[in-house]
Amino acid sequence: MKAASNIIQSPICNVTCFEQEKVARIKAELAKDEGALPQLAELYKLLGNATRLKILLALAQGELCVCDVAHVLGLTVAATSHQLKLLRDQRWLAMRNDGKMVYYRLNSPGLLEALRGDLCLLEERIA
Amino acid sequence: MKAASNIIQSPICNVTCFEQEKVARIKAELAKDEGALPQLAELYKLLGNATRLKILLALAQGELCVCDVAHVLGLTVAATSHQLKLLRDQRWLAMRNDGKMVYYRLNSPGLLEALRGDLCLLEERIA
Repeated sequence: MKAASNIIQSPICNVTCFEQEKVARIKAELAKDEGALPQLAELYKLLGNATRLKILLALAQGELCVCDVAHVLGLTVAATSHQLKLLRDQRWLAMRNDGKMVYYRLNSPGLLEALRGDLCLLEERIA
Repeated sequence: MKAASNIIQSPICNVTCFEQEKVARIKAELAKDEGALPQLAELYKLLGNATRLKILLALAQGELCVCDVAHVLGLTVAATSHQLKLLRDQRWLAMRNDGKMVYYRLNSPGLLEALRGDLCLLEERIA
């Protein structure tokens, strides 16, 4: 019998195995966090965009109006506003109106810490 | 003049402003991390998938063969193998062949810590 792994790109076991007890133990362990995984995946999807990451790092310096964020990013005000809204919709940013100005600020210091930690993680891998 | 914010969904400042000095300072600050942002966004894109997150949490329990990961996920071996390969391609997993078996393990304890931290971050927000 020709091994299946010869004809597909992703390697698989060439025999079917099933460690029932181990699988049951791991499933039980995962059950604790499983409910939160779709929400965590949503957060990561939101962060999977260099412009949005740059917005978060820019706002780490303090509250900014939409125009100033746009200048930092080198994008149009409309494009910037769209990205800010996406981050605000998931409550990672807070917004306030002040006269004719619209200001955004970080709504979760924890997110920024996580981001900085993951930057280090990446540096460790690149090295 | 009708305010532009009345006709678009994402709020913008109703006057054009530009705090040149502040923007320059923030851009200088961002320059340190800017180069790594596309790679960080790539990592987050990879993590923006509940199945892949589940794989990482499963492998936190120790090395597993592809069949056992498939049983944990409740997916086909082919689908599981594909997701494992994506994680391995970016070096977050390591693979070894042992006879007819293919085993995967975490290649970065830091990634798992980050994941657990972000789960807490999410819980804080949900609360």
